[in-house]
Amino acid sequence: MFAVDPAFDAASEPLVSLPLCEARLQNDARFPWLILIPRIAGVVEIEDLGPEDRARLMDEAVLGGRAVRAMGEALGRPVQKLNLGQLGNITRQLHVHIVGRRDDDPCWPGPVWGPGTPAAYDPHDLAAIRAAAIGVLKP
Amino acid sequence: MFAVDPAFDAASEPLVSLPLCEARLQNDARFPWLILIPRIAGVVEIEDLGPEDRARLMDEAVLGGRAVRAMGEALGRPVQKLNLGQLGNITRQLHVHIVGRRDDDPCWPGPVWGPGTPAAYDPHDLAAIRAAAIGVLKP
Repeated sequence: MFAVDPAFDAASEPLVSLPLCEARLQNDARFPWLILIPRIAGVVEIEDLGPEDRARLMDEAVLGGRAVRAMGEALGRPVQKLNLGQLGNITRQLHVHIVGRRDDDPCWPGPVWGPGTPAAYDPHDLAAIRAAAIGVLKP
Repeated sequence: MFAVDPAFDAASEPLVSLPLCEARLQNDARFPWLILIPRIAGVVEIEDLGPEDRARLMDEAVLGGRAVRAMGEALGRPVQKLNLGQLGNITRQLHVHIVGRRDDDPCWPGPVWGPGTPAAYDPHDLAAIRAAAIGVLKP
């Protein structure tokens, strides 16, 4: 049976359920950042998904990218580049990171996974980006 | 008109042409590593691709993952986890990295983009992984 790995709770929170994926909001004020987790038990690699679900994952990643852009706008820091990553070296359950990048962000031009320390959102900003993301994902 | 950005020549070499993408071999003996570049001029983000090309890119990424696994076998270092990344912070032309990871590789469990220094393949290994990859990509 599908369940979100509890490891995701340490750094992200539920946002919305899309047709294929659970969309979660990464609690890191350094970058507007979503995680998509396909609601299918036991999948680790994209090869574990059938072609239809893979195509759906890409469609939801594009939608997620739009939501990340909206989050950047809500923070007054428009996204200049999207970064997608499917790593899973630590938490195996298949998930895709969608991260909004700017050339003034603390990891630029390197990847966001690993270096530095996540920064907490202030509650006002968190409410603003949640609303912005939901406005795109569940209009 | 489509052309592979010359920036890719610094670290990778042509391997095969797939229906959508140019597949290139990353010259870094630390990891079996392919790059897929859709043969469409001007695309930067996956949102710049239509739904059919996005689905095709995912299918070719799955095939590329199989090729990366075959490269790992040819080197006697079977892949334990695939990592996919679409960043483009430095070279904007849309490209997807497919990297074979092991818990004894020099960047584990962090991402491969950025840290450390690429290692040159010895020519025998390079020939072996080229053959292994082509055997999967153009059987």
